[in-house]
Amino acid sequence: MNSYKHPYKDVDFVIRHLLNFDAFCEQNKIADMNSDFTAVILAEAAKFATHQLDPLNQKGDLEHPILKDGKVIETPQFAAAYQEYVAQGWASLSASEEYGGQGLANLLSVACNEIWQSANMAFSLCPLLGQGAITAIERHGSEYLKEQYLAKLISGEWTGTMNLTEAAAGTDLAAIKTQAVYDDGQYKISGQKIFITWGDHQMAENIVHLVLARLPDAPAGMKGISLFVVPKYLANEQGEYNIENDVRCLSLEHKLGIHGSPTCVMSYGDNDGAIGYLVGEEHCGIRYMFSMMNHARQGVGVQGLGVSERAYQAALDYACERIQGSDKAGNALKIVQFGDVRRMLMAMKSGAEAMRALCYYAGLEADREQASNSSDEKAQFAAQTAFLTPVVKGWSTELTQEMVSFAMQVHGGAGYIEETGVAQYVRDARILTIYEGTTGIQALDFTQRKTLLDNAAQAQVMMEKIAQTCALNELDENVKKALNSALADAKQGVEYLLENPSQASFVANYYLQMWGYTIAGWLMAKAHLAATKELQIGAGDNDYLTTKQVSCEFYCEHFLVRTQACLASIRAGGDSVMSLTEEQFFSHVN
Amino acid sequence: MNSYKHPYKDVDFVIRHLLNFDAFCEQNKIADMNSDFTAVILAEAAKFATHQLDPLNQKGDLEHPILKDGKVIETPQFAAAYQEYVAQGWASLSASEEYGGQGLANLLSVACNEIWQSANMAFSLCPLLGQGAITAIERHGSEYLKEQYLAKLISGEWTGTMNLTEAAAGTDLAAIKTQAVYDDGQYKISGQKIFITWGDHQMAENIVHLVLARLPDAPAGMKGISLFVVPKYLANEQGEYNIENDVRCLSLEHKLGIHGSPTCVMSYGDNDGAIGYLVGEEHCGIRYMFSMMNHARQGVGVQGLGVSERAYQAALDYACERIQGSDKAGNALKIVQFGDVRRMLMAMKSGAEAMRALCYYAGLEADREQASNSSDEKAQFAAQTAFLTPVVKGWSTELTQEMVSFAMQVHGGAGYIEETGVAQYVRDARILTIYEGTTGIQALDFTQRKTLLDNAAQAQVMMEKIAQTCALNELDENVKKALNSALADAKQGVEYLLENPSQASFVANYYLQMWGYTIAGWLMAKAHLAATKELQIGAGDNDYLTTKQVSCEFYCEHFLVRTQACLASIRAGGDSVMSLTEEQFFSHVN
Repeated sequence: MNSYKHPYKDVDFVIRHLLNFDAFCEQNKIADMNSDFTAVILAEAAKFATHQLDPLNQKGDLEHPILKDGKVIETPQFAAAYQEYVAQGWASLSASEEYGGQGLANLLSVACNEIWQSANMAFSLCPLLGQGAITAIERHGSEYLKEQYLAKLISGEWTGTMNLTEAAAGTDLAAIKTQAVYDDGQYKISGQKIFITWGDHQMAENIVHLVLARLPDAPAGMKGISLFVVPKYLANEQGEYNIENDVRCLSLEHKLGIHGSPTCVMSYGDNDGAIGYLVGEEHCGIRYMFSMMNHARQGVGVQGLGVSERAYQAALDYACERIQGSDKAGNALKIVQFGDVRRMLMAMKSGAEAMRALCYYAGLEADREQASNSSDEKAQFAAQTAFLTPVVKGWSTELTQEMVSFAMQVHGGAGYIEETGVAQYVRDARILTIYEGTTGIQALDFTQRKTLLDNAAQAQVMMEKIAQTCALNELDENVKKALNSALADAKQGVEYLLENPSQASFVANYYLQMWGYTIAGWLMAKAHLAATKELQIGAGDNDYLTTKQVSCEFYCEHFLVRTQACLASIRAGGDSVMSLTEEQFFSHVN
Repeated sequence: MNSYKHPYKDVDFVIRHLLNFDAFCEQNKIADMNSDFTAVILAEAAKFATHQLDPLNQKGDLEHPILKDGKVIETPQFAAAYQEYVAQGWASLSASEEYGGQGLANLLSVACNEIWQSANMAFSLCPLLGQGAITAIERHGSEYLKEQYLAKLISGEWTGTMNLTEAAAGTDLAAIKTQAVYDDGQYKISGQKIFITWGDHQMAENIVHLVLARLPDAPAGMKGISLFVVPKYLANEQGEYNIENDVRCLSLEHKLGIHGSPTCVMSYGDNDGAIGYLVGEEHCGIRYMFSMMNHARQGVGVQGLGVSERAYQAALDYACERIQGSDKAGNALKIVQFGDVRRMLMAMKSGAEAMRALCYYAGLEADREQASNSSDEKAQFAAQTAFLTPVVKGWSTELTQEMVSFAMQVHGGAGYIEETGVAQYVRDARILTIYEGTTGIQALDFTQRKTLLDNAAQAQVMMEKIAQTCALNELDENVKKALNSALADAKQGVEYLLENPSQASFVANYYLQMWGYTIAGWLMAKAHLAATKELQIGAGDNDYLTTKQVSCEFYCEHFLVRTQACLASIRAGGDSVMSLTEEQFFSHVN
């Protein structure tokens, strides 16, 4: 079985040298926070993940949660690990100090999230989605809700869920049928939700469901949906949460992967109606839901990074052990010495590093927004974060599919055998381009809301940043050439989109992927610069810094070049995509 | 659950109009064989597959074969389906008439294979690999072996297996340790083989294992390996095959997919030594093995086509049923109407069609070789077949990964649930780039043996064929432009390789994929021409022919454009791929 090691040198390099986190802390007078501090915290997180979460990763895959007497029983030992996770304070890292959080930088929380997801993605989905519940209540909840729920959710004593999807309402939330009625001073919720991650379990004292539902007088469509807090246990008169609410798990899904994470069909109000508490105002649920969703989307991008890094490590270990053939002198060869195996390892290495650069960069944008005192600046940071969110989710998770597939390919036949462990990464990772909005939804969001709606203003900001890097004399010539070429492609892609907004849905995915490769390429170019500078100073780890340069060069040669094909497909527009009738699609079989 | 429909119109178009099979039959005076005849046979094959194999596809996934009292018990109902397959004569289609085969064209056998693999890949692996045993005995076996084994293998009463891999000898067969000793007029085999597909089962009366082993006096390495026939049951004095040979299945692998196909660890000679019969001459086993392997490699390419077509059909059905959202007039929308879903459906459609064109084209090359009376011509057809084999295997199976992933993506969250059935295609398909030589091995074969060794002579032949098509006035301008551009990339790729043979292993995969896109693009361009011509004649199915044109155009816009990035990565060579030391690879975690 593979074991996870924290890639602490690359993490530290990204935080310290690529993102200049120390300069950010200093400029914003954030006391006690700097790269040295994050390194200490991350080392502790890595210790916990390696010793407590990693050993349960394959266990969760094999010993699924089960539904017994109406209760979901999670994989053995998950509860103990969760309680330790809470006891060590990992749940509350970046949450607001007002409700017991530690108020640390979002960047640190992203870096920790990478560790949790690498070590055990199925387990770590639970706190990841709980974050969404915290965000929704913190931003939009009443004082009562904050007081009753926030501290317990932040500490992790209670977990949170997001209840959006119904059988006929997936991508289209306007079709939601779950009902809420106001009766005798209370909201009562009834309906069924599907695909509810960690919808029930015994790891925590209470589960706080955030549920989208429709009031009787609600307008049709998206503007008639409200958000409710529906706890598994309600408070008695003494304020003890021990009264069962009318909520239960009907069944568990049998999934391709993330077996350790129970995916529940949840039923609300089978008896008298589940008691719920309105979040914010009636009919504004979709807006609040996006508060949860955007955080979760970036988190899913980080899951891609986490599983990619882990899969890379497994492949690298195998390639350095597995002997096949010998050289002319008769010495046994490890497969790491073969050109095509090496190509796949380098692709995984540089792919994971590019995702890390992107995810952490986007993570720090949220800290910049938070730290800024100027409302204009705040708005600009928020807009860049919004611009980056679909890229973090849609690009990282698509690239992840290639990374985990490479990991299996390096293992050859052994990889196809479940015991080896790498097949689990392939199965687990496959959900990432689907949940929290498919890649198609990310791409639509990116083209429509994040490009066309602001007339490409944020795209322009990003292009200018990239152009500035391209203009630096000290940038390696080959890297510069590759980045310039990708930037030119991105520019033409933006122009095409602005001139042909009616083609947006057909070209959206290419447009998103092209930007993903380009922004990550920009960050890899900056990393190349930073590594070169550190090598010149001569105080760093030469081996690591040299690999960083090579990794950036590999990225330019093997990933960044893909923008050309994206642009070519964008320019083809939607003619061949859309010209067939539904009947014509079946003309080869009918 | 999804059901399979034979894409008979596209199959017929490829055979009749793209490949001009009737002209081939006429030129070569092949009596009674033409496109009308193949259509009749294929309709029968489709009927059998739809009614007998397809219903067992998910069953095989869920009810794995089990090992009980030393015997492998296959999935219930597989045996009855197999016996019906044999009774209907499907096993013997293109085998030599001398030993009871039907002597039909290889192209027909490829087209049938597509049907079997679409309907039930795990089941159809059994006869597919049996073909390898037939080929090896037919080409290299003694008269005794032919007489004793060939008729039963050809009829399908007995099945065949290929025993190559051992725990320490996968890609590197030189490391094989299984021993053969000649003792008292008999060869006795002992050793363990792993990953033996359908190594044991109860569907047939006997199983004929083709086993690579080493004689005591054998030279070291690849030149010291011999090939043996080792039957599960030996003949008694009356010639009845009912004496158990010293062969047994030790265990079954727990795999990611193709669950219905038992993958066995086989042990030979645990007691007295398994009795084996030498195929051909001693120490020449690797050469004979390639006779089996090349057939199997093209067959695996066709498996990719089969599962891609099936996955496409499942996605198309779902997209035409699933409602999400509504248009401005309030009419419910099916997801097939969404641009990004449509893009994925078109990609699956045109991807499967491109694979079909390539697999069938390569299949007919073997018929051309067979039919030719000139030895020069025969050699040239054989050389083109050899050139095409790694492309059929390595390109089709890699593209298949994308196709099945699209099928899941179209299904969204429902696709991740096993009951839907599409997850099985993803799991099944993942073996295709691994077994019968990984993509890396195909790519090495293609660059080294199929390009560098003949100084790109066969590549040149292919480029001339493509150039001829590009020169045709009647070719659609956009298609011509795209094909010309890909051809120019391929040319430059060949030049790079000839000038930089030392970089072959680093660029091999890109070189292979670039050629795959280009050759398939050429065939799609020819298909566009043929469809246009048929539309002009006006006697065909206009709906089908129009979709064919669109599908070819989509291929040019979305797949053929990928050659650019392949060429860019080829030109980067191996510097960034190979420059890290093994220690440096670990420098981010150590």
